[in-house]
Amino acid sequence: MDIGGTKIAGALVDDEGSVLHRAETPTPAREPAARLVRAVDTVVDALSAHPSWGAVRGLGIASAGPVDTAAGTVSPVNIPAWRSFPLVRTMRAHPSLPDGVEPVLVGDAVAMAAAEHWHGAARGVADALCMVVSTGVGGGFVLDGRLHPGPSGNAGHIGHVTVDLDGPPCPCGSRGCVEVYASGPAIARHAVAAGWRPLDGVEPTAAEVAAAARHGDARALAAFDRSARALAAGIAGSATLLEIGVVVVGGGVAQAGDTLFGPLRRHLRRYAALGFTRDLEVRPAALARDAGLVGAAAAARGRLLDVRTPSGSR
Amino acid sequence: MDIGGTKIAGALVDDEGSVLHRAETPTPAREPAARLVRAVDTVVDALSAHPSWGAVRGLGIASAGPVDTAAGTVSPVNIPAWRSFPLVRTMRAHPSLPDGVEPVLVGDAVAMAAAEHWHGAARGVADALCMVVSTGVGGGFVLDGRLHPGPSGNAGHIGHVTVDLDGPPCPCGSRGCVEVYASGPAIARHAVAAGWRPLDGVEPTAAEVAAAARHGDARALAAFDRSARALAAGIAGSATLLEIGVVVVGGGVAQAGDTLFGPLRRHLRRYAALGFTRDLEVRPAALARDAGLVGAAAAARGRLLDVRTPSGSR
Repeated sequence: MDIGGTKIAGALVDDEGSVLHRAETPTPAREPAARLVRAVDTVVDALSAHPSWGAVRGLGIASAGPVDTAAGTVSPVNIPAWRSFPLVRTMRAHPSLPDGVEPVLVGDAVAMAAAEHWHGAARGVADALCMVVSTGVGGGFVLDGRLHPGPSGNAGHIGHVTVDLDGPPCPCGSRGCVEVYASGPAIARHAVAAGWRPLDGVEPTAAEVAAAARHGDARALAAFDRSARALAAGIAGSATLLEIGVVVVGGGVAQAGDTLFGPLRRHLRRYAALGFTRDLEVRPAALARDAGLVGAAAAARGRLLDVRTPSGSR
Repeated sequence: MDIGGTKIAGALVDDEGSVLHRAETPTPAREPAARLVRAVDTVVDALSAHPSWGAVRGLGIASAGPVDTAAGTVSPVNIPAWRSFPLVRTMRAHPSLPDGVEPVLVGDAVAMAAAEHWHGAARGVADALCMVVSTGVGGGFVLDGRLHPGPSGNAGHIGHVTVDLDGPPCPCGSRGCVEVYASGPAIARHAVAAGWRPLDGVEPTAAEVAAAARHGDARALAAFDRSARALAAGIAGSATLLEIGVVVVGGGVAQAGDTLFGPLRRHLRRYAALGFTRDLEVRPAALARDAGLVGAAAAARGRLLDVRTPSGSR
């Protein structure tokens, strides 16, 4: 399952990571908690009608954060009715769930990391950071060849690492967080503040800024450079702390391609200065739409293969 | 063994982490490589004369960095003749070494983390960052109850995490690194730049600045506050990335006690803002002089207990 602020998706994923069957419904994000549960049930019901349902051995749930995997609860920022909502207990109680299947909860960015490590750009990499740069900035770690979700499933929160002690306040309460500079809305805000405007009637999004940058607009290029520099400092810090060899970058902002990756690689050469960080490789994410679903399946599979990973069994 | 720029120390450490016997010699830091090896041999010879020598089952080596634990080499900044020096191979070839004992190399800050986790302030903690704040700033991680040295033994290098994108250049090549603000020399430099002076004939060290701060000198207090703020941003970043529950701070600068720990805890409340980082606990290091030796022993013991940890067997 992949629970987001826009849609609730589910899939049957086989042992090779292929999606056999898929179902989804829009998230009734502003509705009461019980209405949300019915939306989840709708997706599970659609999947359980598939002939392969009886073969289900695990259930992975990727959810928008914050999550608390130890408690089995979720509090997605964009789903106000769910605060410390017991999603694991709720899913476990679904009547169609095959006996013995224990739900495994992971945050959506950690799920993305699991998916990229299983079948994407971090495949075969022992130590990787996989990031989503979008409306927010999130991430997940693979360390020593395994997903590292942390005790409550929140490890990899790179969007809220401070890269400027005296930087602007962040809604999280800290200052100068990566997200303040690097997110899609931050890029658009910065370009607009510098005088850039989208075409009449068009929203000023990071995608529009990227289009302007491709046409050489200096204000648009500067907004992406600023985003890339904050990302580079945060990524370099992660590499310095954890000897990450590969960073995978996905999400809407990464669709800007070289407009983002060019300055990102350039700034990394500055900020990742120690010998053991210098070979850090930046890769675009390989999985798109299904990263959350495949990652949730990877997390459930990890739990079946090894009870130490990935959720709360410490 | 504990190899530093000032002294080369060795100890026989029992399975409980107690030091049975200790030997040391000054490091001939400016001498050729072979002279350094003889100094190491002197220490091993002194230990091998002890009646317990025959019971030695492991050999841990903590070394000033950078180290490369995968290659078994060291390049200590303050020992110029050793650059990519094959310390593991050299130790393995020592004629007194009992058969079957395989040397395990770790960086000195990682060794400190191993020691604090085994017998110090991080005992029983699943996820911890242990730091040394001294002439430089270093650290090591315990993740998921185990030492996490990283593929080449350099994980935990928190002194070179950027906390100010546009900060002053660091000798490492990056900018605004924690060490630029937080190290002992940085504290002394900042206090002197603000007009503080030590007593006549006394060197302007962080310890002198700490003494002035205890007497209420505003410039001295400001220098410690600046150090604490950079440490807080770096520590908060580590907690945000890794869900660290405890940070242990040792080293010369930590001897300033509340002069450092007071502002450090205060700034952490600002920078560690996300729910899962808010309970982060700051503890002074519990082990002093022998942290390197006990940590080296812990690393060797970890290797005996579990071949996955801690060095280069991936």
